[in-house]
Amino acid sequence: MDRVRVCILGASGYTGGELLRLLAFHPYAEVVIATSREYAGKPVHYVHFNLRNIYRNLKFSEINIDAITKSCEAVFLSLPHGVSLNYVPKLLEVGLRVIDLSADFRLKNPEMYKVWYGYEHPYPDLLKIAVYGLPEIHRDELRNAKLIASPGCNATASILSLVPLVKNKVVDLDRIIIDVKVGSSEAGSKPSIADHHPEREGSMRPYEAEGHRHTAEVEQELSLIVGQKVNISMIPHAVGGIRGALASSHSWLLRDVEEMDILRMFVETYKGEPFIRIVYKVPPKYPDPKYVIGSNFADVGFAIESRLRRITAFCAIDNLMKGAAGQAIQAFNIAMGFEETAGLQIVPPKPV
Amino acid sequence: MDRVRVCILGASGYTGGELLRLLAFHPYAEVVIATSREYAGKPVHYVHFNLRNIYRNLKFSEINIDAITKSCEAVFLSLPHGVSLNYVPKLLEVGLRVIDLSADFRLKNPEMYKVWYGYEHPYPDLLKIAVYGLPEIHRDELRNAKLIASPGCNATASILSLVPLVKNKVVDLDRIIIDVKVGSSEAGSKPSIADHHPEREGSMRPYEAEGHRHTAEVEQELSLIVGQKVNISMIPHAVGGIRGALASSHSWLLRDVEEMDILRMFVETYKGEPFIRIVYKVPPKYPDPKYVIGSNFADVGFAIESRLRRITAFCAIDNLMKGAAGQAIQAFNIAMGFEETAGLQIVPPKPV
Amino acid sequence: MDRVRVCILGASGYTGGELLRLLAFHPYAEVVIATSREYAGKPVHYVHFNLRNIYRNLKFSEINIDAITKSCEAVFLSLPHGVSLNYVPKLLEVGLRVIDLSADFRLKNPEMYKVWYGYEHPYPDLLKIAVYGLPEIHRDELRNAKLIASPGCNATASILSLVPLVKNKVVDLDRIIIDVKVGSSEAGSKPSIADHHPEREGSMRPYEAEGHRHTAEVEQELSLIVGQKVNISMIPHAVGGIRGALASSHSWLLRDVEEMDILRMFVETYKGEPFIRIVYKVPPKYPDPKYVIGSNFADVGFAIESRLRRITAFCAIDNLMKGAAGQAIQAFNIAMGFEETAGLQIVPPKPV
Amino acid sequence: MDRVRVCILGASGYTGGELLRLLAFHPYAEVVIATSREYAGKPVHYVHFNLRNIYRNLKFSEINIDAITKSCEAVFLSLPHGVSLNYVPKLLEVGLRVIDLSADFRLKNPEMYKVWYGYEHPYPDLLKIAVYGLPEIHRDELRNAKLIASPGCNATASILSLVPLVKNKVVDLDRIIIDVKVGSSEAGSKPSIADHHPEREGSMRPYEAEGHRHTAEVEQELSLIVGQKVNISMIPHAVGGIRGALASSHSWLLRDVEEMDILRMFVETYKGEPFIRIVYKVPPKYPDPKYVIGSNFADVGFAIESRLRRITAFCAIDNLMKGAAGQAIQAFNIAMGFEETAGLQIVPPKPV
Repeated sequence: MDRVRVCILGASGYTGGELLRLLAFHPYAEVVIATSREYAGKPVHYVHFNLRNIYRNLKFSEINIDAITKSCEAVFLSLPHGVSLNYVPKLLEVGLRVIDLSADFRLKNPEMYKVWYGYEHPYPDLLKIAVYGLPEIHRDELRNAKLIASPGCNATASILSLVPLVKNKVVDLDRIIIDVKVGSSEAGSKPSIADHHPEREGSMRPYEAEGHRHTAEVEQELSLIVGQKVNISMIPHAVGGIRGALASSHSWLLRDVEEMDILRMFVETYKGEPFIRIVYKVPPKYPDPKYVIGSNFADVGFAIESRLRRITAFCAIDNLMKGAAGQAIQAFNIAMGFEETAGLQIVPPKPV
Repeated sequence: MDRVRVCILGASGYTGGELLRLLAFHPYAEVVIATSREYAGKPVHYVHFNLRNIYRNLKFSEINIDAITKSCEAVFLSLPHGVSLNYVPKLLEVGLRVIDLSADFRLKNPEMYKVWYGYEHPYPDLLKIAVYGLPEIHRDELRNAKLIASPGCNATASILSLVPLVKNKVVDLDRIIIDVKVGSSEAGSKPSIADHHPEREGSMRPYEAEGHRHTAEVEQELSLIVGQKVNISMIPHAVGGIRGALASSHSWLLRDVEEMDILRMFVETYKGEPFIRIVYKVPPKYPDPKYVIGSNFADVGFAIESRLRRITAFCAIDNLMKGAAGQAIQAFNIAMGFEETAGLQIVPPKPV
Repeated sequence: MDRVRVCILGASGYTGGELLRLLAFHPYAEVVIATSREYAGKPVHYVHFNLRNIYRNLKFSEINIDAITKSCEAVFLSLPHGVSLNYVPKLLEVGLRVIDLSADFRLKNPEMYKVWYGYEHPYPDLLKIAVYGLPEIHRDELRNAKLIASPGCNATASILSLVPLVKNKVVDLDRIIIDVKVGSSEAGSKPSIADHHPEREGSMRPYEAEGHRHTAEVEQELSLIVGQKVNISMIPHAVGGIRGALASSHSWLLRDVEEMDILRMFVETYKGEPFIRIVYKVPPKYPDPKYVIGSNFADVGFAIESRLRRITAFCAIDNLMKGAAGQAIQAFNIAMGFEETAGLQIVPPKPV
Repeated sequence: MDRVRVCILGASGYTGGELLRLLAFHPYAEVVIATSREYAGKPVHYVHFNLRNIYRNLKFSEINIDAITKSCEAVFLSLPHGVSLNYVPKLLEVGLRVIDLSADFRLKNPEMYKVWYGYEHPYPDLLKIAVYGLPEIHRDELRNAKLIASPGCNATASILSLVPLVKNKVVDLDRIIIDVKVGSSEAGSKPSIADHHPEREGSMRPYEAEGHRHTAEVEQELSLIVGQKVNISMIPHAVGGIRGALASSHSWLLRDVEEMDILRMFVETYKGEPFIRIVYKVPPKYPDPKYVIGSNFADVGFAIESRLRRITAFCAIDNLMKGAAGQAIQAFNIAMGFEETAGLQIVPPKPV
């Protein structure tokens, strides 16, 4: 079988680099176009040193919709929020399958773009056909989806930690605190003072603590699952490490529930999921992103303080993998009818 | 004036080392005895390489109560929990002033030792005379205190973040989540698999998530301040960095309060405090332990998500300083009638 | 084709864990026995959290030569130096192919064991049949080798950096300084004070600076290549990071050589090598282990200070991969007649 | 005694920040002007978060020579290389004492500026009066010096490691390799791709490996000491950690020398030096910058491989302290006739 030819728009950033890595040995797909305004004309390993000798002829190019239309069947967009809007309608029009890794098509309700992103969404109709690319919730809709809106990294960890509890209505749906910890790659590849090594290393720094924008998609998805409005509050923290996002989702149980019942909810919710691993009672006791680095796994678990009926659900992911590129490939595989794990059978190295 | 002669029991650990550092140039005190079973006979810089050329003649010795009684006026105990119990009564009996950095005398209610530490406290009477060594709450009682129970590091950050909110009863006193992030030195100087460099670096690892033992002292102190039972749930996380503890204390405002009112509560609560710094609106926007490292400062601040009336109060400390050795010196200074900041006028280096 | 059944002796350490990772999806081999005295009876993911859901039934077991003989065709030994000696002769006797990752069979001259390791080698005859498992030098001898002595990590980086220069006799063979930098995983998985996170993080610490034991194998291999005695001095330094070893091999050119000539020597030496990548003139300009992490690549390069005819050759590897488990699999593949890259087609993630 | 009023030109960078930290509690000096083009008008803690509550009224200002002349007696210049040239002549002319932390006045031979810095030095006469601010070599000339050229950080570590060996002519003065390891703060406070946290953390990256510019001042000073031309080759490496520079200076002994003789050379060379500590035989065995962080100490030591007569001398410093701000204050103290250690009696914290 010929491999499907794909294009990556915005291939010089960290997520673009990971898409290139994952597609390098993908059995059914290959990258033929990788765009970057800044590095057009340079080989991809000029930026992604890890890819030296992996892609021998692929160079970054400027965005050229005609060339993409002629050569490709699917397009991954790894562009800043607000920029995908400029390309997605055209790409769909010419019949390409689109996987957008930005926030531009994640929210169903166009009003929410005003509230959380500060702009009027120009394509409310496309929001209707876009599928939120979290396979654990939307696997069926992803089959043959034309437009996939790949979830945010903090949102992915948050939702996956909470689905079993929210679906079963065992927690107070108005009292959920999601305290997220993230590594430095989450801020992207563009240098900044905040992420300059001497300033970032060893930090434990809250940010966007008045309401992080991923809140919108988390509330959307959790509300959808339970059929009623769920209110969550997300407070991210920049901590040490390069990769990794850990959602610690705190709430209170509405009734006395046995720990075993909670475990059963996790097991049932994630039965057969190829990338969800439940961490319970064996070391390291709770999920830690350190042990999923480089892979598409999401490790989930929980802890109960029975004295107060407080429960914390955890989800640990690699923010660039299950939180971005890996999840996008997973959704792409489903949409294309490939095995869901194609190109993603990566075991995380340890220690790393 | 002659300098007060002090002894450090358990001087080879991290907290003991910091006490040695702080007392090296203390204007009114000097260390004459530093004990360590393991390193008895070795110079203190054999373990604390940083102290080379600082203490030229001080060697670790075995614990010898007679020698301590003869040479010293005050004793700092930096021993494991449960071990201080073996020494404190005798030290008090011979008339020494005691600053205990363990948990052995922090709780007023002996019952709580059964619940949180699993043992029957053998000296309930001493619990009555012990003063919880947090100057921001107990400054007056600390003057002339004979037995100071120095607070835990996570407890210090938790309490200091919440005092303004709890005292003013603006938050739900039954719905408080304290999500703590700590650096690796918090686990102490004894090697373990969990804190072996390859295993710890880059971790974002929840621990004791069913109920951390510092919960007891935090609830005790906050309840005392507001005059009613406060329930808190503390969930610590081991993250990157060597030093630092950040408490992110999440709760909900009971009524609509202006941000300015909250700010005023912080300002009033901490007016004149030499080591509390309020971080508000200027960079880095919220407290980050990175900027207090090596010093006795506690940086506090807060963030409100008005949509949900959710508030998060933050406190960032150096776990070995305001969270241990620095705070012990501060309380000692008060008890001895010295300037409170003696030996503690340390500006944190940046970047570090 | 049935997959070859292999055993790993000493599977609970870092190198053992990496062998498990690499063999999990190896097309021609599978692990059926993984031994560990300490963790016998526990599933492999009890120690290697990254392997959760990867090996579903494999448990650690005690060493049982009969069971190994019955079930396996090849054995990887990932045991401490001096311990392999106890097993290798028996394993060879029963006809198993042996890949030993310790130093026990690396040196050809038994005298050198006295000098560098302080013991009389009990099996000088086996030293004769052992093949030093560096494919770039001994590929032909590795085909069908019965006993492979897999090189040390520092030795691998040192040798690979110097082969082109030594072979062509352009540098002073008596004036070679190899200044090595290594990450914390090189010290193994056993906790120690030196590698306790608070002590190790941020260190730049020379060790074994009077003569590191890998010197012996580096001098052996370089002397062999050039046909005369080469003297090198290796000074390792423990620096930040978990993985990675960088050899900076400093020497002086014996004559005026053009930079292009040196480049040509590297290109010719490593032509067709699947895991050697030459870094020249494009970013990051010189090899950095950061960009090979998790993979079997060895990145090589050089810098010349013409004013003094000083040349530094660099080689960057992942110490657990090309420096241990990856290289062992590569040699195993050659010995078994498999494609050399089987199980090793891993692209390093970036950033990591 | 009134405190001497000083100005810092370029106070928003890391070195400027450290000068502010050190002068905050200096007994004989105080900062009255701190300039920064970018942050003019902002309080110094707007950039240096660590200084919150330390300087309550000091704001950054634009450079104004008249104001400086009126208010100050001494000026520290912490400006980029080549920029100090624009201010130093004027500052000297109006009678101010000048401590320049750039390279602009370090070299005695104006020709060397062409070779190493690529420009014709416009003030060769000032080079004659400038004193190279390394107190261990130039203490006498520093007394009353009008223009102090404060040494580079890599140069400081390199020179201090080698003085005892070079002065005593025991090593081959044409075969000296200085392999330097540095933390990320050495690159300064300006964000860049190379020092973006995800790219820098865990790196072991050679840079300027064809000849680092500090070579010029190291050769100048070592040649001066021994009275003959010394040739050194410096190869720096960016490694983990924020602070710290370690020089590993490799050479060969010219004759058989006892280890004790070498030790004696170190002891004699540095007898009475307040900031030099010799590390020999006790842990950590060799110097490691980790144990000088935040302080002005320079730890020195050595290792001999007698088999080859190879010797490596080590020097570990905090690049922002003994490598920059601390050393500048030390030289300033000497020039002003203050105690040399004023404001510098800082014990490094551990672990940090």
